[in-house]
Formats: sequence, structure tokens, C-alpha cells
Amino acid sequence: MRLLDTTLRDGEQAPGVSMSPDEKADVARALDRAGVDVIEAGSACTGAGERETIRRVVDLDLDATVTSFARGVTSDVDLAVDCGVDGVHVVVPASDRHVEQKVGSTREEVAETTADLVEHARDHGLWVEVIGEDGSRADLDFLERLAEAAHEAGADRFCFADTVGHTGPEHAYEAVSRLADLGPTSTHTHDDLGLAVTNALASVAAGADLVHATVNGVGERAGNVALEEVAIALAHRYGVETVELTELYDLARTVADATDVPLAPNKAVVGENAFAHESGIHTDGTLKDERMYEPYPPETVGRERRLVLGKHTGRAGAEAALAEHGVEVDDDELQEVVARVQDLAERNKRVTDADLLAIAEDVQGRERDRRIELLELAATSGGRIPTASVRLAVDGEERVASGTGDGPVDAAVTAVREAVAGSGDSTAVAADANLESYHVDAITGGTDAVVTVEVEMRRGDRTVTVASSDGDITRASVTAMVDALDRLLVADEATDPAVADD
Amino acid sequence: MRLLDTTLRDGEQAPGVSMSPDEKADVARALDRAGVDVIEAGSACTGAGERETIRRVVDLDLDATVTSFARGVTSDVDLAVDCGVDGVHVVVPASDRHVEQKVGSTREEVAETTADLVEHARDHGLWVEVIGEDGSRADLDFLERLAEAAHEAGADRFCFADTVGHTGPEHAYEAVSRLADLGPTSTHTHDDLGLAVTNALASVAAGADLVHATVNGVGERAGNVALEEVAIALAHRYGVETVELTELYDLARTVADATDVPLAPNKAVVGENAFAHESGIHTDGTLKDERMYEPYPPETVGRERRLVLGKHTGRAGAEAALAEHGVEVDDDELQEVVARVQDLAERNKRVTDADLLAIAEDVQGRERDRRIELLELAATSGGRIPTASVRLAVDGEERVASGTGDGPVDAAVTAVREAVAGSGDSTAVAADANLESYHVDAITGGTDAVVTVEVEMRRGDRTVTVASSDGDITRASVTAMVDALDRLLVADEATDPAVADD
Repeated sequence: MRLLDTTLRDGEQAPGVSMSPDEKADVARALDRAGVDVIEAGSACTGAGERETIRRVVDLDLDATVTSFARGVTSDVDLAVDCGVDGVHVVVPASDRHVEQKVGSTREEVAETTADLVEHARDHGLWVEVIGEDGSRADLDFLERLAEAAHEAGADRFCFADTVGHTGPEHAYEAVSRLADLGPTSTHTHDDLGLAVTNALASVAAGADLVHATVNGVGERAGNVALEEVAIALAHRYGVETVELTELYDLARTVADATDVPLAPNKAVVGENAFAHESGIHTDGTLKDERMYEPYPPETVGRERRLVLGKHTGRAGAEAALAEHGVEVDDDELQEVVARVQDLAERNKRVTDADLLAIAEDVQGRERDRRIELLELAATSGGRIPTASVRLAVDGEERVASGTGDGPVDAAVTAVREAVAGSGDSTAVAADANLESYHVDAITGGTDAVVTVEVEMRRGDRTVTVASSDGDITRASVTAMVDALDRLLVADEATDPAVADD
Repeated sequence: MRLLDTTLRDGEQAPGVSMSPDEKADVARALDRAGVDVIEAGSACTGAGERETIRRVVDLDLDATVTSFARGVTSDVDLAVDCGVDGVHVVVPASDRHVEQKVGSTREEVAETTADLVEHARDHGLWVEVIGEDGSRADLDFLERLAEAAHEAGADRFCFADTVGHTGPEHAYEAVSRLADLGPTSTHTHDDLGLAVTNALASVAAGADLVHATVNGVGERAGNVALEEVAIALAHRYGVETVELTELYDLARTVADATDVPLAPNKAVVGENAFAHESGIHTDGTLKDERMYEPYPPETVGRERRLVLGKHTGRAGAEAALAEHGVEVDDDELQEVVARVQDLAERNKRVTDADLLAIAEDVQGRERDRRIELLELAATSGGRIPTASVRLAVDGEERVASGTGDGPVDAAVTAVREAVAGSGDSTAVAADANLESYHVDAITGGTDAVVTVEVEMRRGDRTVTVASSDGDITRASVTAMVDALDRLLVADEATDPAVADD
């Protein structure tokens, strides 16, 4: 069993997706690290830029076989040869709809052309796979005939293509069974009916030994079958190894960045929540026994488990989260904290570290000494030099600073750092805190939409997340960042009495 | 074949998901419009707020059966009774891991408790489904024994639960076959291995007649099986009707809004790209024959087809897009336009209407008279009254205006409208143009990230999309909006000579 990745070809055909040559090289290297057998690097006929990129992938000298897509004309095969690829996928129409309406040809002609194309490609020393386009809607007798023509002419394999995501497992099984009797057979499935994985597995059961897939399932319409899902399903259910599973998450992130197609949080294997637990029952169970609510450990695919606070948080989850911040609570306090975390989440809000800590302080009747507080903010933007100024209270002393940046938020962040660093005392260290992530959800609607900004800041091995919502993105961003700095300082104090006694 | 939707219960248990009572009522109404048979409205034991919400759904007086989840204790069943639901799902541990480690019980005890719970629920007149938690990792003989105990005590059905998304189709088929011999059987699958749909269909083939699902597949970890995928797969492949397919898209949008879980563009059935075509071959084919690259028409699920411009755009796609804006090009011009659209897209950019039109103007050597142009922008934010001012050239005349708003962008938009409206001549009508959508991609990284803003503006039946990128979100937003207004005015002029002669 081997996998062919077509993220760089079929994946890039997804609406709105375009990868730069550098990005494609990054993806190809990540695929090779994961041990993918065949990398379809592009479609040589698309243009000079595309050919340049294919050559770039060829020149990476990867372990994988590198191939190009080619329409059913010899000039396309020649363009692929020019790129120096190891192999070529020759695509010929298989269904009558494609044979007659798209190409304006006949079955007879297509079978003949196929044989000619294969011979032409073989003459150039290429590995050749023939793909019968729209094969799942083709007459099975003709599909067999096409495969026969391909094999007789010397093709290395024939691919059953569910081009429009139309087929189901019974039909895929029947078609691939018949094709696999004739020679090595691949399968290429799409997810329009949610059946991409189902049909890939049915094909494998019927004798296919090469599965076409894309990372994250990126591709035309609903996309191709996801490489990571095929790999984990084959490994976990059938003990079949295809790629290095531990590389799957890095690979997914590389492709998400390169394609700008975000991962749904509930995407199998690689989504943000795939190994996250929030509900009381699940968190409690997971803390008792990690395998209680997981089919396989997250480390299998290069990830870590996450416990998340929210409406369904129970006692065990809240206690574990507080302990991470060095906060101990008794039983009654814990019950109250849980109730208030749930209440906050019910009001349709994310629960961040800052929220949890504020609740615990309130429940325990602790006054929090704010060490850094935002008193005033002004920012100008639109012109050439976005500028901001802030007035902060730093350990009770007022400090004013200004800064410039790429935009008003960036300018304000510079101003905050300046004000904090200038204090010269123990708070100055907060200026070194790192902005680990700055995230604004996609804003869709009107320009008056409320924006939620979530920042994660780190100092040493302590991180804290804070969210802030406002109609004004500048104010939301700066409020969140100042609160996060304050939380980091207060936490330091709590665990370092020498500083607290200062 | 019937569907049970558990978006309001298992879906809401997804990390970070919390729906307000209003949102849950909206989702329940949308599920009922789609004809879903059973709506699991929540888990009555979660808290007073949750029970209030369940009652709210009960009071909607829907056609669907409304149920509550209950852990395996009588008090949970009583809480469900208090909410006035029609039925209850009693969850008992099925695998030894859950029986022994989670609950600290024995198989014998669990079987006895199950019978007692069913009788208790039946005594209160409830429809009862028993769910054997972690059933896919349970000993099959014990799972049968649990189902027998449930049926003997009067349960309406027993559910095969792949709680952790661990099973494969062979095992699901075997387990459900054995359970279905004992009485009515449901199936509950998760997508950790990408096999949620596969296992749901295998269960149906084995005799399950009720499938648990969530809209958009929202749920714990990688989520539950997606309702829309089960519905379309059963309809398209097996001719089995379950719900009103034309309601699926509205339902998906309602749930995406309520849960704040975005739809991946390549999500089957309901993703933004599920019926979008960009590549030359696919667009060309689709313009010849709509079914060429679609398994079923988008209208089947309440959607429309989209043709998108990008790196793989071919002649047919570009010509169709230009025609929508009333622009005609000859063959040579078209070839040049296509090359430049591809080139722009290769540089990793989306191609908007404005980009296409600008390319066509340049290729045809037409000078575009800009009627509205942004000369200067200043915005202040952070304080209490975000304010902005703009200087525009409107038909060659300079106009200055200011405005306030919820944030700097909103204030600047007000100022632009003010400046345009004040012109009193034919451009004033542009002030009526509607901002159809304002979209900023999620910003992740540092505060200096470049932001891309895409606006869609409409006047009458003409819409135009424009994107603008900048480190300063205010400037990117206003530039895009002013360009869109200008495009709308110039397009009006092109099709209305009376105005042009003004």
C-alpha cells in the first residue's frame, strides 16, 4: 500500500488556492519527510511558472517519485518530460459525458489515443499512470477496455477516478475489482458526498495499491480524500503502514499555511480540537486514563492533548487548569469556580486563563494587585506613519510613551513596551514577555462588527491567554495585551516571594 | 431510515462551543424545518440554564421528537422528565475500560442498573434509547447482553456508540448486525479516523435504522458524523430520503453562526467551495454542461454554483466573468487577460472583480476615468470616540469630510459616505451603495501582520468585489471601499450613456 499526494496539483486547483514556488518546495519537502511515495508536483501544461516550480521540486532530489499531470495530448507529455519528472499521469475521458460532450470524441478514438500516449511517454522513459477521468460515471465495460489498452501499451498503472465525488463503496469496490484483475490499480476519490475515505478504503479492499490524496483534503469543490485520514485509518484499523504518522501534523500546518485554507477545528487528525477535551465527563475520564476518550494517543500523529475550559468544564478540569497557574482551591471554592466558569461560557464566551484566574481570585476573596493597567490610549492610522500613545499605571506610577508601527495596533504595542521597559524596576522585565500569538477571528459583516482579539503571551515557561472584545480593534488588542502582561507579572510575584517582598 | 440530531448536546460539548438559549431555539427550528426526526436538545443534568433551554425547545411544539441525554442514574432521568421532553437517552458504560475504570463497577451491575433505569424512564412515559458508551471497544457478547437487558426492560432502542471514533466498517457491521437481531438499533459515530460516514453507512447496511449526527459534524474532538453528509450520501447513493435536502445549507449556516465553528471551504455539501469551479478544464466543462463536474446540482441542497477566478482560470471562465460586468473582449485580448489573471493569482493573490476589470482595461488600452479617489485618510482610535477624516477627489473636485463610528474603520466609512453624498451630482448616488460584505481574514501571528480586507458592494443589481492589503487595517479597509464605489460608478456610466454625457 502506497500513497500518492496531489496537493501540489489537484489541491492547488481548489478555488482561491495558489502556492508560490517556495511554498510548493516547502510542501514537497514536508511530504518527503513524511515518506509519501509519489508526489504529483503540478501540471506542466499550465504555464511557464508552473513548469519552473515542477523543476524546482525535481531538483530537491527527494526520495519520492515526482510526477506531472498531463492532459491526453502528446504535447502535454512533452512538457512534462522537459521538467525532468520521473513520471506522468495521462488523463483521458472515461465517461460518455466526458468522451462525447467535453472532448467531442468517441470511445474507440479515446482507447486508441490512450495507447499512443502511453507509448509516447514510455519512449521518454517515464513511469506512466493512466487516469480515466469521471471513471465512476463511466460504463464499466469501457473502463475495462481503457485499462486494457493502457496496460497493453505498457502503462505502469491505471487509476479509478471518482472525479466528481459521485460514487459509493459498492460501486467503487466493483469497479476497482474488475480493474485490478487487469493490472496495478490506483484510486482517486473526492468528498462531495462525504464518502472520499469510504470509497478509498473500498478501493483498497478491492485491490487498489496506490491511493491518491491531498493533505487536509484540499482540492476542487469539497476536496480530495485527506491523506492524513487515509494514513491513520489504514494504520489504526488494518495495521497497514503507509507514511510516518508523526509527521502528519507538521505536514498539515505546512499545507494550511501554503494554501491559506484553514483547518476546521473539528477536522479529523489535524484540527485544533482533534485531541482537546472540554466536557466534564470527558476531561474527568481523560485525567483518570488518557485512553478513555481517545482512539489513539495524540503523539501518534505528532500532537499533544489539550484540556479546554468551557460550559461543560467539571471539577477535575478546572482544578487541573488552576494548578497549572499555581492556584490551589478548596472543595467549596472549586465548586463555585466551576459554576462561574460554566456561567461565563454559557453567555457565549470563550473562557481564557485570565477569566479563570479572575474568577478564582473573586471566589477566594483575594484582591488582585494590578501592577500594569491601561489608563488611556490614542492611536492614529490611515496616514503614512501609524502612531499611538498610551498612559499606563505601572505599580501605581503613571507612565506615558508613544510608538509607531505598521498599523495602529502595532504602534500601540510598541508604546506599551516602551512604557513598561522605562519603569526600570521589577515590572521592566515584563517588556521581555513574548507575544506568542495574536489572533483576531475573521471579521465578516459590517465595519461596525465587534472584534474579539485573543493574545497569548509567554515569559519563561509561563504562558497566559487573554481575550478582549470591542468595536475598536486597536482598543481590544491593547487591552488584551496589557492584561496579559499584568497577569504574567502577578503570577511571577505569587511564585517568587523575593519579588513580592520588594 | 431516520436521523437523530445531537448538535444541541454532543455538538455543544465541542471545545469552545456554547450556544445561547436563543441560538439553540434557532437551531431547533431549523432542524425541524429540515424534517429531522429526533432532536436531542441537551443534557438535563448539566445545570439549571441547560434545563431552561431544553424546556424552551420543548415549548416550540416542533414536529420532531425532543429528547434529553441522561447519565446512568435515576436522578438524571428525573431531571429530563422535569423538562417535559418526549424521550431520554440513557448512557451506560459498555467497554471494560468504562465499566471498571470510569465507573468502578462490574458488567453484572451495569446490566442490572440499565434495566432499572429503563423501567424508571418507561414509568414516566418516556421514549427510551439506551446508549452503550464506548460500545465499539466493548466485548461484543457483553454489548449484546446490555442490549438484551435494555429491550427486556422495555427500551425502545439500543445504540451502538463509537464514542471515541475508534471503529472501522467491518467491526461496525458485525456489532450492529448482532444488536439489530435483538431489537431496533441506532448508530452513533465519531470522526477521529475520518471514518464517521463509513461507519454510519456500515451500521445502516447492518440494520441500524436511526443515525445520530450533528450539523457540520460539530462535536467532541474531530466531531460527530455530519448530518448533511449522511443525508446526501443516503439520498444520492441509495435513494433513501431522510430530511429535506434543500434545507441543508440554511441549517449549516444557522449552526455555524450559533456555534462559531467556521465551515472549512472544502467541507462536503456546505463548504464555500463545494460548488465552486476555478480550474480552466472544470470551468470550461461546467459552462458546456453543468453536470460535467458535479455529482448533483447545488440546488439540491439549497445552494448555487460559483465560478471563481484564479491561477487555473481559462478562457471560458474569464470571458464569462467579463461578460457579467458588460465587458467584451476579442480573442487576442482574452488570451492576454487570462495570462495576466493567472500571473496575478500565481503571485499568491485572490483575483477579485476589480483586478479582472483593471486587467481588461489595461489590455484594451482603455484609460479608466477614476471618479472617486482616496487622497488622504486620518483616523484616531483607542479613545472613546473613534474619529476619521478623508480627503477624496470626486469627479476631479476635492472633498473633505469626517465621521465617527464604533472603531476607526467604521468612522472612516462614515466619512467616505459623507464626502460622496455631499457632492450633490451624479456621484452622490454612490453613497447609497450597500456594503454587502466586509471580510477580514483571521489574523494570526504578530501585530505587524499584513491584513487583507475584501469588500463586496452592491448598487441595484450590480455587485463588485475589491480586496486591499496593508499593515494598517484602517487604510486597507477604506482603500478597498473607495475603489469599490468607484468601480460601481464607472460601471453605471458604461451602461448608461445619459450619465456619461452629463
